[in-house]
Amino acid sequence: MPSEKIAVLGLGSMGGGMARSALAAGLDVVGFDPGADASEAFVAAGGRVATTLRAAVDGARCVFAAVVNARQTEDVLLGGNDANDGIADTMMPGSVFVGCSTMPPDQPPRFAEMLAVREVHYLDAPMSGGPAKAAEGALTFMASGSDAAFDTAQFALEVMGEKTYRLGDQPGAGATMKMINQLLAGVHIAAACEAMAFAMRMGLDGRQVYDVITNAAGSSWMFENRVPHILEGDYSPKSAVGIFTKDLGIVSDAGRNASFPLPMANTALQMFTMAAAAGMTADDDASVARVYAMLSGITLPDGEA
Amino acid sequence: MPSEKIAVLGLGSMGGGMARSALAAGLDVVGFDPGADASEAFVAAGGRVATTLRAAVDGARCVFAAVVNARQTEDVLLGGNDANDGIADTMMPGSVFVGCSTMPPDQPPRFAEMLAVREVHYLDAPMSGGPAKAAEGALTFMASGSDAAFDTAQFALEVMGEKTYRLGDQPGAGATMKMINQLLAGVHIAAACEAMAFAMRMGLDGRQVYDVITNAAGSSWMFENRVPHILEGDYSPKSAVGIFTKDLGIVSDAGRNASFPLPMANTALQMFTMAAAAGMTADDDASVARVYAMLSGITLPDGEA
Repeated sequence: MPSEKIAVLGLGSMGGGMARSALAAGLDVVGFDPGADASEAFVAAGGRVATTLRAAVDGARCVFAAVVNARQTEDVLLGGNDANDGIADTMMPGSVFVGCSTMPPDQPPRFAEMLAVREVHYLDAPMSGGPAKAAEGALTFMASGSDAAFDTAQFALEVMGEKTYRLGDQPGAGATMKMINQLLAGVHIAAACEAMAFAMRMGLDGRQVYDVITNAAGSSWMFENRVPHILEGDYSPKSAVGIFTKDLGIVSDAGRNASFPLPMANTALQMFTMAAAAGMTADDDASVARVYAMLSGITLPDGEA
Repeated sequence: MPSEKIAVLGLGSMGGGMARSALAAGLDVVGFDPGADASEAFVAAGGRVATTLRAAVDGARCVFAAVVNARQTEDVLLGGNDANDGIADTMMPGSVFVGCSTMPPDQPPRFAEMLAVREVHYLDAPMSGGPAKAAEGALTFMASGSDAAFDTAQFALEVMGEKTYRLGDQPGAGATMKMINQLLAGVHIAAACEAMAFAMRMGLDGRQVYDVITNAAGSSWMFENRVPHILEGDYSPKSAVGIFTKDLGIVSDAGRNASFPLPMANTALQMFTMAAAAGMTADDDASVARVYAMLSGITLPDGEA
């Protein structure tokens, strides 16, 4: 009987929730995070943490990398500044490494190759749903990889996610799908901010605009989700500007590499870059509305109302 | 007991449906359209048409102008090339003129003033829902005007629409709300086309993208509604490119007039303008996907699959 141990590398807003929902489902979970706060939070929730990456993955059948980007994923595999702590050489043959970060589509095939020589499977499985869904075990995974990779990760994906899309056997398809989702999400946030700021400039009542648009053809998932932040004047980060300068940066690079024009995505990227330039990188991504307000002098709800 | 007669001026895809749903609800409807086909279609549906604008509105309590734009609305009021056929001077005192076209927000106040001297009310009531909803009597009206204007039009709005938003007593608020909706709708269509074309360029399966995105944070009402046209390769106009060069043109002008920057809307406008430049003005607005295909050499579904 194979071990059911899983490792979750990165215990931030996403990885922390994933680790906790796996724990709640009765799996044997070991977490790792270089930050003391994240580690302590998982221990406080009843979890177990390791002090090194290698100790975390020792004997694990399934390893989730819930880190920020491709660079950190590579550091986890190869050790980064500490070559003695890379896990690529210590994972069990037959186990699976699940890459959950949003990353350029050309990276997962590289990671899959690195691991294939150790007979370790790679599942390209970026996720959608945000911290709230992570905590509920209700994420959506957009995944691609071999049948063996899927089969080995299945028991853990089931408890962390509500749905796993199987996008074929080639690592990279999951990353591409996530990138397309982020293209749309980023454009829709920028458009929602532009529309709300312009509506207020033109004298409309923001709450009335929200009510009408969410019942009309101009609506989007992001309009529904983010506009309340503007109406409440609450820019504490549910998801930060920096996520979209990063993710739309991936989109922009991928388009240029493929000689594919992406005027909508690149315009949205510029709006998030303006927000970052104005010092809002760590603020909620609805802060793009504040860029329009800064430029035009309109007054947005200030959160005191 | 006041007359319940209503007039519908313009019997195209929107006005025709509005006139038929009013007829089906038992109202006394007279239609007018300069085109023989539109007039004959309404007669074939059991409707009555007049041969002049003035004859159509004679004795009507409520007059709907379902024409293309502000210019045509003004022509209806003042007669355009035939000064003897303008209705501003012949409408009954106490009746209401309902302007349903998408138009610049500075136009409804002008029309309201023209009519106020005749004691005729003006309701600024652009609509959302498209031809299908018009035919079902299930439109959404985004309306502003005096209480008298609303009260007088109420019996007719009820049978043509599922919902009427009351956006205050100032003509122009309805037009502004519709403009904001069109800003978002246009951006979302352009983004949907960009994302689908890029996804296919990157090797994803279009139907799988549709399945994943419509269940993810990247979705929008327009993505759900328009992407099937791309997947079916069907560019027969459910709503044409020309509608969005017009409506985003209104958005663009209004932004410039207010010194308000609209990078997202203006980029989308350029995408529809590229489609128009490529000869697709009368084709479905999802044709923006074909612009990306022309530029990049990708092959979209051809409608024969």
